[in-house]
Amino acid sequence: MDDLTLSARVAPFRDASAFAASVGALNLAQGLPEPLFDEVMNTALARQVTAGWQYADPRGEMILRESIAAHSGPGIAADSEVLVTSGCTESLYLALYAAATEFGNKVAFFEPFYPYYPGLAALLGIEPIPVPFSPGLQGPDWDALEQQVRAGVRILLINTPHNPTGWCMTGEDWQRLVALATTHAFVVIVDEAYGQFEYATHGPARYPRGQLPIMVAGSASKLLSMTGVRIGWLCAPASLIERAHAHHLYLSYCQPKPLQAAVAVLLDELAGGQLDGVRAHYKNKRDCLASALANAGFEFTVPAGGHYLMADYSRLDPSRSPVAFSQHLARCCGVMPLPATPFYLDHCPRSVRFSFSVAKPIVDQACARLEEL
Amino acid sequence: MDDLTLSARVAPFRDASAFAASVGALNLAQGLPEPLFDEVMNTALARQVTAGWQYADPRGEMILRESIAAHSGPGIAADSEVLVTSGCTESLYLALYAAATEFGNKVAFFEPFYPYYPGLAALLGIEPIPVPFSPGLQGPDWDALEQQVRAGVRILLINTPHNPTGWCMTGEDWQRLVALATTHAFVVIVDEAYGQFEYATHGPARYPRGQLPIMVAGSASKLLSMTGVRIGWLCAPASLIERAHAHHLYLSYCQPKPLQAAVAVLLDELAGGQLDGVRAHYKNKRDCLASALANAGFEFTVPAGGHYLMADYSRLDPSRSPVAFSQHLARCCGVMPLPATPFYLDHCPRSVRFSFSVAKPIVDQACARLEEL
Repeated sequence: MDDLTLSARVAPFRDASAFAASVGALNLAQGLPEPLFDEVMNTALARQVTAGWQYADPRGEMILRESIAAHSGPGIAADSEVLVTSGCTESLYLALYAAATEFGNKVAFFEPFYPYYPGLAALLGIEPIPVPFSPGLQGPDWDALEQQVRAGVRILLINTPHNPTGWCMTGEDWQRLVALATTHAFVVIVDEAYGQFEYATHGPARYPRGQLPIMVAGSASKLLSMTGVRIGWLCAPASLIERAHAHHLYLSYCQPKPLQAAVAVLLDELAGGQLDGVRAHYKNKRDCLASALANAGFEFTVPAGGHYLMADYSRLDPSRSPVAFSQHLARCCGVMPLPATPFYLDHCPRSVRFSFSVAKPIVDQACARLEEL
Repeated sequence: MDDLTLSARVAPFRDASAFAASVGALNLAQGLPEPLFDEVMNTALARQVTAGWQYADPRGEMILRESIAAHSGPGIAADSEVLVTSGCTESLYLALYAAATEFGNKVAFFEPFYPYYPGLAALLGIEPIPVPFSPGLQGPDWDALEQQVRAGVRILLINTPHNPTGWCMTGEDWQRLVALATTHAFVVIVDEAYGQFEYATHGPARYPRGQLPIMVAGSASKLLSMTGVRIGWLCAPASLIERAHAHHLYLSYCQPKPLQAAVAVLLDELAGGQLDGVRAHYKNKRDCLASALANAGFEFTVPAGGHYLMADYSRLDPSRSPVAFSQHLARCCGVMPLPATPFYLDHCPRSVRFSFSVAKPIVDQACARLEEL
């Protein structure tokens, strides 16, 4: 994959937002979370600047690693199983690198996929192997995935809650992987960027750590509605953290101490229930959007989690391409979705993605416009 | 290079500091700059948090790119020739990546070298080719470098002021490269982490941009005495910035807006002369240390720039290895230098590196102890 392709694969986010602005449409093409905790952050930061601006521990300051371990579930050793990174992107890069040193140079992930996956793999010399979702996008084709494992793929990259469909991995799904792990040695990288946003189960998933190697990439971006704070993390078995850490020394190296300390304060303070309120707020936005889109004639599975709704528009407008339809909707209805094109390697179905990670008044206004379609 | 080697190559910094602490010696093994501008930074940051914590421009906020362009010399286009990175480390990683896409997979750099160079190259599949300094470490062996260019090496990575020797590239040196560029197409990556610290010329170097392709990696770390703020940059021709940017999207992605805005304020405010005072302060520390080391019997070239002094101890103690001698000096004299081992790929001479990037009272105390040797 050359540099132009690297940029081009993720350019549709920027292009769609620019188009929305150019025609004055409401921008539902990107995740643009409301800054829910900026005041708490700024207060914490004003106190934590006393930590100073000299090198932090490249593994992450212990105070933050302990908060991450506590947030991520029981039994995670803050000293050896947590690495603080520059957002979820560096975490995924390092996870793939570390996984490839032990599990070979092929990675399977479900298609549609987060558009950064093929590029992350390509930059590390890893072959990307997309595995399809079932028709209707209700969930992944597990048989197809198992077939890839039996054929020798040893790294699975699973995004749950899933972007763009909102599918969430269930306990049954995990048991299927645990069973497969009794006969095949593979590692699962979990991209849990939206980990706190599961609407059916009222909370994030618990992973069967100890039954198979699991590496979890997370970040403060969506969890704390601060996409630009660039505090991410990787939780994984110690041997894989060692490998990721070795490469991390040659990338972002460390994150600023005051930011780490402030995010630790927020993780500790918000763990006690405020995140339930955030989840309820997003569920409410999801329900409004889903209702309006159904009334407008879109077909979709209501997302069980995440920040997005993937909708099929072929009944409404069978001829236009996803890009043409998105622009048409922006012009005629004043609502700009993201064409689903970047979520597919080659062929993209007649689908667009609507974000409900925007302020509630924007969701409401978009719904009113869509109801008039 | 495997992960153990990646970590091991840069572990001596940590190991030497740990040894210094264990025997209660003054730690001159690392650059531990005095926090000269923390108060200015914290004041600026308190104002700039209003920029919020959502995604910044992946190329860098324009306000910072303009400050960097102004700081880096005339004729640099902030919109197309500057990329903001997570410190100088990510900048070097991206520079090497971008250079390799156009100039092939071999990089030459002078030995002794900053210990991260071989690992950075290895992680990107680039062959590292160390070129020796002249005996006595007074400067590089330019003939040997030219020979490598004639043999096909197309990427030169030059650290000026140089870590560990303090050598600074002169105008004559640049003219030699300009002449070579008339017959050979190569790119020069300048690691100017210590760019502001040239003591003979009272200021940073000017590069012959336009006469050959030059990529300059810099950062706020040493310039603003804030090693952990993780705001770095790459200034390069637009086509190479495009390539670096494409990869940057898949690594740290962007730096926090408030940090970028605050560093921009500091760059603008300090450009007007305060950095001259910092340079004089470091020159004074260098002179104290050089005098004490000369009196103690070390042999060295006084560093023309940078934060370190590389000293030959073979007249003092011809038998001990660099590691053994460093520990011996820490135990007997209470001053811990860094063994020069990590600066060499294989054979290391009987040399140690002393840092004067520590508080002046520590330099003074170390000098008093060394004078008693």
